[in-house]
Amino acid sequence: MKGKKMKIITISREFGSGGREMGKRLADTLGFDYYDKEIIREIAANKGMNEDYVRQVLEEGRWQSLPLTYNRSFSSVTMQSLQIDILLEQKHVIEEIAKVGKNCLIVGRNADVLLEEYQPFTIFVCADMQSKIRRCIERAPEGEDLSPKELKRKICRMDKNRAQTRSIITGREWGERSAYHLTVNTASWDMKDLTGAVAAFSESWFERSK
Amino acid sequence: MKGKKMKIITISREFGSGGREMGKRLADTLGFDYYDKEIIREIAANKGMNEDYVRQVLEEGRWQSLPLTYNRSFSSVTMQSLQIDILLEQKHVIEEIAKVGKNCLIVGRNADVLLEEYQPFTIFVCADMQSKIRRCIERAPEGEDLSPKELKRKICRMDKNRAQTRSIITGREWGERSAYHLTVNTASWDMKDLTGAVAAFSESWFERSK
Repeated sequence: MKGKKMKIITISREFGSGGREMGKRLADTLGFDYYDKEIIREIAANKGMNEDYVRQVLEEGRWQSLPLTYNRSFSSVTMQSLQIDILLEQKHVIEEIAKVGKNCLIVGRNADVLLEEYQPFTIFVCADMQSKIRRCIERAPEGEDLSPKELKRKICRMDKNRAQTRSIITGREWGERSAYHLTVNTASWDMKDLTGAVAAFSESWFERSK
Repeated sequence: MKGKKMKIITISREFGSGGREMGKRLADTLGFDYYDKEIIREIAANKGMNEDYVRQVLEEGRWQSLPLTYNRSFSSVTMQSLQIDILLEQKHVIEEIAKVGKNCLIVGRNADVLLEEYQPFTIFVCADMQSKIRRCIERAPEGEDLSPKELKRKICRMDKNRAQTRSIITGREWGERSAYHLTVNTASWDMKDLTGAVAAFSESWFERSK
């Protein structure tokens, strides 16, 4: 690094838009460390929790189903504090990544806000609903056989959870255009071509004169 | 051109974001014909109308003040049909620009939707409110001395008008991220650096393999 400032890129994305794939490719192209599920693994290890449970809390908005208004009972208080614990640990893990001081790219987890002081280049990845449904069908995990209608519901639910998580953690609106440096639409691109274009744009941003 | 497909770029923008300046610079960089106020001039000439009136109808949403529910009176019917006339003429002028067949960049006027069949590269330009207010103060026309509070109101009003015009002309939502290929935030950039980055991205889009 020799005196050069560390570079951080964050990717926020709509479910099904291909943001994760773009992020992985972008990190490879730029030679940046890549963080995505690694963060969940780290949280689970640090807290001695099940990885799947951590993922569910963070990605599927499990706190939504909590009886928040009934939190006088012992079990729900425990549930809530467990979840707050996961969120705090996530914050800690992300801050630790930045402290390593190496160029890195982080997908999701509101890292754009959590690492604001490091002035990351913040990207939001989107696509129209038809493209997202098509992508989800093409990349369905084994055993998943959802209809386009069910996929649309899933996409909306996942994005609603992301918006809610962002609001809880940062108090900000998810996807609000002026909160990101760049919003890219994956719909009309081959992912390889798009990655090249975004990599060049990102480099211009880090080298800009302002 | 020699058999190559014509390239069209459209710029939609929040008031005060610097979208017009970026558009002008981008057209210069790429060697594209540039259309902005030229369209208003052409509409006014074709319809034998005052240029300022045409601009007011198109940019300041003068139809908002029309007593649409009272359109039985002769004068208001005339007003309305004049405005519809301007919108139709605008559509015609924009279509004529595309028919010339030269690479061009069009700022505003919902050209992204009107010229959809030509597959334009569609850009939306935004910035946070503070940056937009700062820009408006720096570039205030002579004699304008609005406070930040008044500028904020003006910015919101202009964008509301743009959203309304878009809805009237195209039935679509203004600024909806997945309706544009790229959304750029001018806030952290020097305009010259940003233009270079957007020009490179645009060229990648026109050369993409998909």
